[in-house]
Amino acid sequence: MQSLWERISTDNAEIIAVGTELLLGQIENTNATFLAKALSDLGINCLYRSVVGDNPERLAQAIERAGQRSDLVFLTGGLGPTQDDITMEVLSKVVGQDMVYHEEEFRIIENYFKSQGRMTAPENKKQAYFPALSKIIPNPNGTAPGAMVPWDKADKPTLFVVLPGPPNENRPMFEMTVKPFLEPLAPFKFHHTYVRLVGIGESDLIHHIPDLLSEEQKNPTVAPYASLGEVSLRVTYKCKQDEEDHESSKIIEILQERLGQYIYEIGDRDLVHVLGETLIHKKQSIATVESMTAGLLSATLAQVDGISEVLRGGLVTYQVRVKEDQLGIDPELIREYGAISPQCAEAMALKGRNYFLSDYCLSITGNAGPQGQEDKPVGLTYIACAGPKGVKVVEKKLKGDREKNRLLAVKQALALLRIYMMDIGD
Amino acid sequence: MQSLWERISTDNAEIIAVGTELLLGQIENTNATFLAKALSDLGINCLYRSVVGDNPERLAQAIERAGQRSDLVFLTGGLGPTQDDITMEVLSKVVGQDMVYHEEEFRIIENYFKSQGRMTAPENKKQAYFPALSKIIPNPNGTAPGAMVPWDKADKPTLFVVLPGPPNENRPMFEMTVKPFLEPLAPFKFHHTYVRLVGIGESDLIHHIPDLLSEEQKNPTVAPYASLGEVSLRVTYKCKQDEEDHESSKIIEILQERLGQYIYEIGDRDLVHVLGETLIHKKQSIATVESMTAGLLSATLAQVDGISEVLRGGLVTYQVRVKEDQLGIDPELIREYGAISPQCAEAMALKGRNYFLSDYCLSITGNAGPQGQEDKPVGLTYIACAGPKGVKVVEKKLKGDREKNRLLAVKQALALLRIYMMDIGD
Repeated sequence: MQSLWERISTDNAEIIAVGTELLLGQIENTNATFLAKALSDLGINCLYRSVVGDNPERLAQAIERAGQRSDLVFLTGGLGPTQDDITMEVLSKVVGQDMVYHEEEFRIIENYFKSQGRMTAPENKKQAYFPALSKIIPNPNGTAPGAMVPWDKADKPTLFVVLPGPPNENRPMFEMTVKPFLEPLAPFKFHHTYVRLVGIGESDLIHHIPDLLSEEQKNPTVAPYASLGEVSLRVTYKCKQDEEDHESSKIIEILQERLGQYIYEIGDRDLVHVLGETLIHKKQSIATVESMTAGLLSATLAQVDGISEVLRGGLVTYQVRVKEDQLGIDPELIREYGAISPQCAEAMALKGRNYFLSDYCLSITGNAGPQGQEDKPVGLTYIACAGPKGVKVVEKKLKGDREKNRLLAVKQALALLRIYMMDIGD
Repeated sequence: MQSLWERISTDNAEIIAVGTELLLGQIENTNATFLAKALSDLGINCLYRSVVGDNPERLAQAIERAGQRSDLVFLTGGLGPTQDDITMEVLSKVVGQDMVYHEEEFRIIENYFKSQGRMTAPENKKQAYFPALSKIIPNPNGTAPGAMVPWDKADKPTLFVVLPGPPNENRPMFEMTVKPFLEPLAPFKFHHTYVRLVGIGESDLIHHIPDLLSEEQKNPTVAPYASLGEVSLRVTYKCKQDEEDHESSKIIEILQERLGQYIYEIGDRDLVHVLGETLIHKKQSIATVESMTAGLLSATLAQVDGISEVLRGGLVTYQVRVKEDQLGIDPELIREYGAISPQCAEAMALKGRNYFLSDYCLSITGNAGPQGQEDKPVGLTYIACAGPKGVKVVEKKLKGDREKNRLLAVKQALALLRIYMMDIGD
């Protein structure tokens, strides 16, 4: 006869987030979104999801109902040392198990406090009590261990997975302990490959691949995701746990054939990391001259680890006089064409390249809004890239609010750098 | 005898977010958090919150259960034109009302598409059907109108408030139609005043006001909220709908007495807006010289509307050679003290002030991580402010990851500017 643990199944899952601060809307329920996605990636159906406050009766009701209808129930939150933290205790009552003290877990809690130069308080002792049948989930980043608690019900058992609220604690606990436990039990796995494109809009993209997006394309499937100024395709192959994915690469070959010029990454790196790592690899330096984006482009480049090898720096020429006095742009040019012009963007990029003695220089000048400038519409933006083979300028008409237009302009500048480097075979 | 609408109460509320993409963890359930906070601000208890997928049976069950236990139920999502959009229809079945076609609502939908240069599709017609007793909630930013639908149950009625999923649609609908409807029915209102502080940590702050944070302080209450590099106090006065708040100001006086030097705002403006607007008001210009933050500080200043009047620009001296060659810092200084030193920060601020001819110049040099530099620890940062009365330098030891350290350094630079301006009576 199978043991209790052997009878655990993962057919239907459910997530309960515990905490009055969630009910009051003080924080986002990011735990539920994280778990929902993680379960979806494991091929486990999550049909129910709810939030309960720090109220014993309502929590007990929610746990009871979840246990009756789902095979796998996640509980997040309520594992702290205060009086409002009741999750383990209420769960133990519902599943009819005594709370058992785990001496070794309390030692671990004490050591955690010691390593931070803090004292354990008497209230922390309760964090070492668990329902009798628990398997402990160690917490490398906090005090409260979690637990996997099976409920031995009449019909079939339900497994409760109890995790603390703070994401920096429960994420590693899920990855290190819970996921490896669930994987063998999960019916399928989904293997995702992200194909990232820039320079083409979602509607255009869809026209290139109607066959791949149709219902006839069953496995792998292809799904588009739009984000700021770019679009991704997620290629998903559903297979058994021990199967390897040999199908996604065929789809990706088709995408390369039809859309290769727009694909900047197959994988997880974003655009600035792909470009930044390319520049580092090729030992090609870069600088920036920004008006409208006021430093957002150079700050974005600086997100790339090791970028100091190639990022010389940048100039933020926010006021027009700074374009003239500090950067040395001819006041006549600005008088004739305005600061928001292809001529000015070109001059900014060329002057910047000389000023910083860099291989590449990107410039951005435009009007993020909300008011118009120089009798030109909000959103009108010019971006230039100066490099080993001259300077390239593009015009963009951005349609977001002030903040969004600045972020879009940064993305467009990176896209221009990519085009420039591709064009000269760099 | 009271009409159905007159018998609506708001004692207990509940939120149901509809959408399989939520269950799959593809997006955050920001609607529920927004509504939860809005209800909390109205003094309406929200005891239950859940997510349901685009499944008719489970949605009907959730609506039925919510209707039985709550007086006010919010439903978000599922109002689109596709087959998966079933919210209005399922609701109408549960509450036993026919779906009625609203010709005028369909005209509004048609006009919305016309204004965008698009065609109405046949599927859009279903978005003009509502349960028979509905009050329509107009949608200024999208196609699907919402509805307030009373359920005339045996015991007492429940009001369903149905809103579309996209936040840019449901937020204005809530503010313009739903909130004015609920306010007279809400038992209380909460009046919040935010007191924003910088330059003091949360633990220290708590020591100054233990009386205000204790249980004895009942109305108004004072609650601390920590955010990146600063802390706020929320003073909350609970009163009847038609009452005015004369109590919060007394608490705020006490806070001014005890903590005045740290309070930079009583209200909603963040630190950069307070400082930016002060500079604009006083017609005092500012520039930046950034190393580690690579443009994040100037980009942050540029968030302030009208800042072009005072923000000259900035220099990002990411590589050491740029500090020497472009900015003109003595290479001897850097050889002796390093780029991450108070001497270098001071020189950057002074040189920058001369370079841009600005009243103020802020500089930031440090190591955000993850690797150490110049045999100095990760997080070591020097920030300087040069102004009309010399230069002020501070040392900070930041303890976050790379991104967090950069954001913290920007916040600290703004805090230093504030101190400088206060010290010289500016």
